[in-house]
Amino acid sequence: MSNVYAWGTGIARRAASGAILDVFFPCPVLRPAPELAAELLQRFPRGTSETTATALQELLAHLPETLATSLAPLTDSRTTLLTVLLTEDGPITDTAEAYLKLHLLSHRLTPPNSQNLDGIFAALPTVAWTSEGPVLAEELSGCLLRARLEGRHLDVHSVDKFPRMVNYVVPPGVRIADASRVRLGAYLGDGTTVMHEGQVNFNSGTLGPNMVEGRISQGVILGADTDLGGGASTMGTLSGGGTIKVSLGRNCLIGANAGTGIPLGDRCTIEAGLYITASTPVTLIDETGEVVRVVKARELAGGSDMLFVRNGRTGQVECRTNRRAIALNEALHANN
Amino acid sequence: MSNVYAWGTGIARRAASGAILDVFFPCPVLRPAPELAAELLQRFPRGTSETTATALQELLAHLPETLATSLAPLTDSRTTLLTVLLTEDGPITDTAEAYLKLHLLSHRLTPPNSQNLDGIFAALPTVAWTSEGPVLAEELSGCLLRARLEGRHLDVHSVDKFPRMVNYVVPPGVRIADASRVRLGAYLGDGTTVMHEGQVNFNSGTLGPNMVEGRISQGVILGADTDLGGGASTMGTLSGGGTIKVSLGRNCLIGANAGTGIPLGDRCTIEAGLYITASTPVTLIDETGEVVRVVKARELAGGSDMLFVRNGRTGQVECRTNRRAIALNEALHANN
Amino acid sequence: MSNVYAWGTGIARRAASGAILDVFFPCPVLRPAPELAAELLQRFPRGTSETTATALQELLAHLPETLATSLAPLTDSRTTLLTVLLTEDGPITDTAEAYLKLHLLSHRLTPPNSQNLDGIFAALPTVAWTSEGPVLAEELSGCLLRARLEGRHLDVHSVDKFPRMVNYVVPPGVRIADASRVRLGAYLGDGTTVMHEGQVNFNSGTLGPNMVEGRISQGVILGADTDLGGGASTMGTLSGGGTIKVSLGRNCLIGANAGTGIPLGDRCTIEAGLYITASTPVTLIDETGEVVRVVKARELAGGSDMLFVRNGRTGQVECRTNRRAIALNEALHANN
Repeated sequence: MSNVYAWGTGIARRAASGAILDVFFPCPVLRPAPELAAELLQRFPRGTSETTATALQELLAHLPETLATSLAPLTDSRTTLLTVLLTEDGPITDTAEAYLKLHLLSHRLTPPNSQNLDGIFAALPTVAWTSEGPVLAEELSGCLLRARLEGRHLDVHSVDKFPRMVNYVVPPGVRIADASRVRLGAYLGDGTTVMHEGQVNFNSGTLGPNMVEGRISQGVILGADTDLGGGASTMGTLSGGGTIKVSLGRNCLIGANAGTGIPLGDRCTIEAGLYITASTPVTLIDETGEVVRVVKARELAGGSDMLFVRNGRTGQVECRTNRRAIALNEALHANN
Repeated sequence: MSNVYAWGTGIARRAASGAILDVFFPCPVLRPAPELAAELLQRFPRGTSETTATALQELLAHLPETLATSLAPLTDSRTTLLTVLLTEDGPITDTAEAYLKLHLLSHRLTPPNSQNLDGIFAALPTVAWTSEGPVLAEELSGCLLRARLEGRHLDVHSVDKFPRMVNYVVPPGVRIADASRVRLGAYLGDGTTVMHEGQVNFNSGTLGPNMVEGRISQGVILGADTDLGGGASTMGTLSGGGTIKVSLGRNCLIGANAGTGIPLGDRCTIEAGLYITASTPVTLIDETGEVVRVVKARELAGGSDMLFVRNGRTGQVECRTNRRAIALNEALHANN
Repeated sequence: MSNVYAWGTGIARRAASGAILDVFFPCPVLRPAPELAAELLQRFPRGTSETTATALQELLAHLPETLATSLAPLTDSRTTLLTVLLTEDGPITDTAEAYLKLHLLSHRLTPPNSQNLDGIFAALPTVAWTSEGPVLAEELSGCLLRARLEGRHLDVHSVDKFPRMVNYVVPPGVRIADASRVRLGAYLGDGTTVMHEGQVNFNSGTLGPNMVEGRISQGVILGADTDLGGGASTMGTLSGGGTIKVSLGRNCLIGANAGTGIPLGDRCTIEAGLYITASTPVTLIDETGEVVRVVKARELAGGSDMLFVRNGRTGQVECRTNRRAIALNEALHANN
């Protein structure tokens, strides 16, 4: 095991006060090999520190070639560089650490829910993301006034702790129709298309390929070939979704304007317009059309091969499945 | 009572024809104290007029100190300043007046539904909001062509009568994940977070704190600690919502992809995915689980302590509440 | 009949490799009159070719006056011009052809579903649409790094095959609150307002006037005076919507958070929150309140004068209509 959790050297932008607004890490590294880890520990203090171009230049000779090539342009930086060296995956203690962990996610180096993100909200300042770059939210009024006085047009795209991902990381094989809806820290697998109505929070995402036209809440992961229809919702744990962590397996389809508050296994479908919450009473129907029993949806959490519909004749929420899936699902929950 | 309703001196941007495209008022003032009102009435004509930097400079000495400090930078303006002085809250008669009233809302000087906004659509030109500033919509084609010929990239963010709020006003204690979805004239209380899927129209908003992941239609107000889930809808009166004005009290939760066409009091919940319209038949159930009666949802308008769900077994829309809330609600409607 | 299908001369932007990223055609022409067609066929090769300013200048004398006036500024272009001359409406074979066909739609020269768009996805490169213009998606990482090194702020608005419409075409009489949600190739009729939650794909749109607060999927058309409520969904054929092509006639209202997977005729309403898919069992009720029968929604496809609700007492999906409409609808389907 490496004795370094993660390393990044990058370019920071700062407020007039000197406070860090954001950090761009072109090549973050997760768990470097022992030789590189030793090299890093010798050259950089733990945590966040400033790095001169000269210091980075000296390091380059000790790096694997492709990494050295990628980092070389940083030695031309006009501003002091910033290095974050984390020996373990502890709680986040400053802005630069937060940015490094968000970069690791969006560079697909570590999947959602695998990192310690405690303290991330406190570590990230609320920033106005403008067409001229980031500004502390509380300094924005002055900037707006100055721009008007000088006849410049200033657009404010967002006032948020998290910036949009694609201003920092563009993972290969991904399309994002409206970049303002995917936060840095999203994990988008190869072959993911996020349409205009799609939205992906930090520490959530897709394993790819996926079509995302709905909202992926913080902590939610979609397996391969699972599609989220237009306006579909995955319930998060941050805002009223309770403690059940939602995830979707492979080959699922959540219909347009539908939603789920329970995790689903593989090959599940929720019809357009139907929202399944943990407490929804669901009538279980087997492959012969026979009613098995009525359960709370939470008892079906994690099951596979389920089709959820609301019967147009009776208004009943039905889960159409087969005896084998029911048996497997019972076994799954017996293990809880 | 002040004999001035509102005053603002600001910076206008104009089309080639001279028509006003927008006005930025850094410090709008509502109902100034009598001394200031008298000073203003002596120096400015009623309505909209041009103001020289010298005239503003002379006024500064007569202003309260903080206001003078805030307005002082305007004396450096490269363009002629614009002053709007309204002696009463009458219908809107020109573009600058409309901008002043929208600023009053977003500066939290006056809550939604408290101003006369008659004539606002006619007073606001349809503007293309571009990365180089506002352009009359009908002049945009020419701008696009010139930019291409000159090798400049021009982004058009919106073609709308209303600009985004945060290019003019950034109320403290607010986060807005996608600024294009909050119009100038939105009223966002302290502690409001508008997520990517949130949307706030002019003359509507939140009293704060609130989490907004759904759409707040024109005229709709959310009380403190009320959350609007992802994609949740509040029915407006502008587009088919009829004449009932929707508002939500304190501590309500409208679930993801849910919606309401009736106003709600305090501590109400609508489960995810359920839309209550004024004409929805609702089965009222008391705390013992007994059915009280079936009513149209409009009869429950304004009530508190109600939980709305669609029963997954029967398809019935239920309102679970208690006898005390039912009695209070009946009293409420008896007064209508 | 003209022996030219379409013609456009415009300005292209290119990647470092020379690959075309986009083309802007200020005045695309559909089926030119025979004299003009003959002139074009004599001067330009079929398909896509480069055109010098001189060649364009010579052509101007042979064009109708308004067209000549509109195209004249192009002779000042700093870069080589690009001409696309299509003698027939065949499959799309290169990027410039794709852009010409998308322009024809957004200029309202041809309605959705009337052109051959085969091959369009293959012909369009995935482009990062940035505040400095288009960049090949695979070259974006380098651009982000260079911008940071040089202290420039670069915003990436989208990584997509299709750009936003209003950077190319601004049809008269249209408002679009959030321009990032309307793709080039959308067809927006006069009097169309697309609100923040509205979305319009290429090869889809409105005949005008319309209020669009929901999502118009590829291939979907809305007739005059038909409104799409906030978050409303029209099921597309690209992503799981099957093979039924959805369209809406005149004077329809799809409520907020509602949706349809079947085409509708005139004067149809779907209540807020209700999603009708092709396989939804629907109870048909006539004007006297009598149940006629239960049908799959697909059997009602294309019918007029239908009101769809989910009964709040029974959970049943009902279609309230009248005997005359039922008879007409049966005749409609008898013809299939």
